[in-house]
Amino acid sequence: MKFEISVLPHNDLITGRNGKNLLRVLQANNYDIPSYCGGRGQCGKCRVFIIKGAPEVTDEEKNLLEPSEIKQGTRLACCHFLEGDLEIKLPEEVKMEVLTEGLSVSINLEPRLRVEQIDIDLPSLDDQTDYLERIKRASRAETINPALLSGLEALAKKGGLDLILDKTRIADIRERKSARTIYGIAIDIGTTTIAMYLLDIVEGKELGVYSLTNPQYVFGADVISRINYTTRNENGVKKLQNKLLKELNNGIDTILKENKVDRDALYQISIAGNTVMLHTLLGISARTIAISPYIPVFTDEISLEPQEIGIDMNPCGIVQLMPSFSAFIGADILGDMLVAELDSQQWNLLIDFGTNGEIVLGKGGKIYACSAAAGPAFEGAKIKCGLAGVPGAISGYNSQGYQTIGNKRPAGICGPGLPEIILMLLNEGYIDKTGVFKDFKDLSHEQSRKLLSLENQKAFLVASGPDTSTGRDIVLTQKDIREFQLAKSAIAVGIRFLIEEAGIENNRIENVYLAGGFGNFINAGASCRIGLIPAVLEDRIIRIGNGAGQGAKVYLLDNDQSKRANELRRKMSYLELAKMKDFHSYFMKNLNFQPVKSD
Amino acid sequence: MKFEISVLPHNDLITGRNGKNLLRVLQANNYDIPSYCGGRGQCGKCRVFIIKGAPEVTDEEKNLLEPSEIKQGTRLACCHFLEGDLEIKLPEEVKMEVLTEGLSVSINLEPRLRVEQIDIDLPSLDDQTDYLERIKRASRAETINPALLSGLEALAKKGGLDLILDKTRIADIRERKSARTIYGIAIDIGTTTIAMYLLDIVEGKELGVYSLTNPQYVFGADVISRINYTTRNENGVKKLQNKLLKELNNGIDTILKENKVDRDALYQISIAGNTVMLHTLLGISARTIAISPYIPVFTDEISLEPQEIGIDMNPCGIVQLMPSFSAFIGADILGDMLVAELDSQQWNLLIDFGTNGEIVLGKGGKIYACSAAAGPAFEGAKIKCGLAGVPGAISGYNSQGYQTIGNKRPAGICGPGLPEIILMLLNEGYIDKTGVFKDFKDLSHEQSRKLLSLENQKAFLVASGPDTSTGRDIVLTQKDIREFQLAKSAIAVGIRFLIEEAGIENNRIENVYLAGGFGNFINAGASCRIGLIPAVLEDRIIRIGNGAGQGAKVYLLDNDQSKRANELRRKMSYLELAKMKDFHSYFMKNLNFQPVKSD
Repeated sequence: MKFEISVLPHNDLITGRNGKNLLRVLQANNYDIPSYCGGRGQCGKCRVFIIKGAPEVTDEEKNLLEPSEIKQGTRLACCHFLEGDLEIKLPEEVKMEVLTEGLSVSINLEPRLRVEQIDIDLPSLDDQTDYLERIKRASRAETINPALLSGLEALAKKGGLDLILDKTRIADIRERKSARTIYGIAIDIGTTTIAMYLLDIVEGKELGVYSLTNPQYVFGADVISRINYTTRNENGVKKLQNKLLKELNNGIDTILKENKVDRDALYQISIAGNTVMLHTLLGISARTIAISPYIPVFTDEISLEPQEIGIDMNPCGIVQLMPSFSAFIGADILGDMLVAELDSQQWNLLIDFGTNGEIVLGKGGKIYACSAAAGPAFEGAKIKCGLAGVPGAISGYNSQGYQTIGNKRPAGICGPGLPEIILMLLNEGYIDKTGVFKDFKDLSHEQSRKLLSLENQKAFLVASGPDTSTGRDIVLTQKDIREFQLAKSAIAVGIRFLIEEAGIENNRIENVYLAGGFGNFINAGASCRIGLIPAVLEDRIIRIGNGAGQGAKVYLLDNDQSKRANELRRKMSYLELAKMKDFHSYFMKNLNFQPVKSD
Repeated sequence: MKFEISVLPHNDLITGRNGKNLLRVLQANNYDIPSYCGGRGQCGKCRVFIIKGAPEVTDEEKNLLEPSEIKQGTRLACCHFLEGDLEIKLPEEVKMEVLTEGLSVSINLEPRLRVEQIDIDLPSLDDQTDYLERIKRASRAETINPALLSGLEALAKKGGLDLILDKTRIADIRERKSARTIYGIAIDIGTTTIAMYLLDIVEGKELGVYSLTNPQYVFGADVISRINYTTRNENGVKKLQNKLLKELNNGIDTILKENKVDRDALYQISIAGNTVMLHTLLGISARTIAISPYIPVFTDEISLEPQEIGIDMNPCGIVQLMPSFSAFIGADILGDMLVAELDSQQWNLLIDFGTNGEIVLGKGGKIYACSAAAGPAFEGAKIKCGLAGVPGAISGYNSQGYQTIGNKRPAGICGPGLPEIILMLLNEGYIDKTGVFKDFKDLSHEQSRKLLSLENQKAFLVASGPDTSTGRDIVLTQKDIREFQLAKSAIAVGIRFLIEEAGIENNRIENVYLAGGFGNFINAGASCRIGLIPAVLEDRIIRIGNGAGQGAKVYLLDNDQSKRANELRRKMSYLELAKMKDFHSYFMKNLNFQPVKSD
């Protein structure tokens, strides 16, 4: 027999079998009801307000609820088993929006570390309860960092205390301060760049951003060369780790000082990054990630005490490394996914462009991911006049000509400029859809002046020498176009296989989230018209900027995101593209510059 | 509606309401069903065998149980809600007996740290699971000590591994060894003596015992003088702590070497002791314990990493301080209580003799405790010829005369000798029941030769000078008898108030457990006849020796004892004797040497 439960304020109607526990039924219907004790009637957190059908009060409830609450209809969901229809109201949550560069994510402001202000009464012969127990009974704390015990009596005498709670463990205790603020830093450790976001954990506010270069570049520009360094040099792993840690500590120092935040008030750090970065951060060799069969040592979330890792912050705080999925789908992509809501009830597509382009397609319970070996073209590498996304880099090309980042004199071409330049070459007839430059004889005189013959290959003159900051011509060569074709096709084929695997039409995808520097600058129209992204999705493209960094923020401010990230991991299937049956023919076909239609 | 559940192999019949969760019903009936996930259908540990009434298999069970198990009737208790009568069989537990000096205690051999032997298969392109996950899925581990991550890949390649699990956390990993043994030490830190027991955790066997003097004696013989030292000397607490830690490490070193156990194989230490000892061990001032209103800083169980406290053992191991109840009822008494089964279904009485005599009376859900200010007579202090329980101390007296410990020439009188000497004095007519020596004129000539007049008081000649190892007379003075009377009455009154509070007759007590050195040597008959212990209990006295040390062993070998100790704490009511209404008149009445009858 099934009963109906009407749930306010959501106005939902759910059902549950006779005898089922109310808490479990609500949780099974994705209501996020807090329960610290796991439903054992001990924490009193799973309060619901019963409008109709209030069951008899249990002993646990008499202990944990005020008589006035009980009278008004408040019950603990874990204490009741369905015996009939119910009408209930859930308590309102502290909802908040985390602003990212591209969109806002709705989370509960429930950080793992919290400040609880309590008042302790003085002991007497009538109440000989020990000091720790006095603190516990005045708060939701259950255990304590043993290092705090020796200072407990002196603090307890102050009466008013701020507890810093790590879930139900007392991580730190301070004398009551006027401001009950504690701070956290969300960090994304990219291969090239490290981004830090300073947050007021209590208010959920972002106070400052700071970015710095990953100092490991001295050991190699990409992860493979850094891993090679570690296998060829004694203590190589340790050297990579120390370099990174030192710079992280410098960065933390800077962002704290810039925002006038005391180091002792920094209690929580959450870290996203690709799998190799997280391994080297912990001083773990990433060797097995780089060689077949590509095995990380760990992918779980790792919680560390600051001294276990060597980060300068309040020693009672915690450092959380976000979970990864595999060698190629790292915590950075999990971070993207938290922001891009790959677990929502509609099909969403995420593309994080890079040397490996990670692509994820998901809806509710199903998530498909792959890693496309795009090569370095999106980052402007292996392109003759290629440049990173710095001021002066050509990042677009329209009827008025090129545009540069910061409107500076052109110095080269960055990845996001390529689709528009190529689209123009196609539209103007410089190249055909296979990407091959036409013969000089097939071009108008005007056109042929812009086509150069260079080192046995043709090249298009994007900006001529005297106009450029370098004094040299900025060109796009036949080889550059080939490089970009390889990258473009890799991504396009990845998207195609994911869509096939999901068994849907292109058109079913509601949102396309683009992450990473390339994704943040490319022109949606050009990308679709040259066949990088399916044509039908042109107006559904959303740029999320540093999605990994945004994900780390979300992770820091809402402890439940840890569970959510694990759910995302659990639901994910990984497609090894190189092993797909038609990979090669799809790849060849998608080299062409033409819109991808549903087929 | 209620259903009946027949439970084998216990042959119990219990009932549960319609719709109640089976696991909760079993737990509510005190069956100790393991459940690591808190009843969420995730750990697969709450297996029961359904003989009659097997419910439908749930998805969780399909995941967690073998098809053959399901077919034979095994189910997970947490997955089912009562819909009818059931006949079930619980899995057999690993039961074992812990031998104590006086009795054996039945426990489950379920130490917090366990060795799990696993085999890891090598990764391949078809199974790219990371190394940590491979270890987790081959074991019941859920999390890992992060310090182990950097060595994981090298170890995983070995195939066969020994995991040292702290519940579901990987505390350590070693290459498979032929012997999968790990070791633990149970320690009782007494004010005077420290006892250590070396245990093979895997087999539950005791390998060796070692006892040493508490080195804090240099700061004072009793806890009060040591606390005074800390309040009068800078860094006094730290000095007490360091002295104790150094000696503990020496003792650990000795007991390991004597038993040829490698220090790296020592993973777990459990510590009992009175509240002051546990405070000083952690470097916490015990000042507030000694002054009204007598408040400890903590009474909870405290788990520490070895480096947090400074004990030399495997750094991945744990040190557990057992919980206490209050300033006077410490972890030593909780240890006694685990052994004396104060939570059994019959009334048991525990007496731990000392300067403060702790007395506990309990049955099932009700436990009453008090602390009787007995003074030092039981320990032979403040007695003119008093001596600790060392060879040559007179520990008994019967028709043949005195007996000494070790049958050596007498050197003095230890506490346990007093009841028999006094009983003889009473029987022979030297003293009356108020403890006053008769006049010389009222004694026979023979008798009066043994009665001396000494420093303005009478004294009985227990052993004359030439017979003793000191060459001096060993006497028991009128003042000595008074001292003992105060101690005896304090205990007798404590027992009486506990019995009154429990609302039972003396006769209802099934067992009287005597702990501590005095309790281990006294004569039951004499103790009852002079009114120390109610007369009717004479043949129900059981000596448990160092109950605290035995409790620490039990605590170490069976992780569930931690829960049990907390239950004992929760059920305990403390009687402040000095505040009881009739305390003074009872105390005066019980000074007399006469059997305590039910009144």
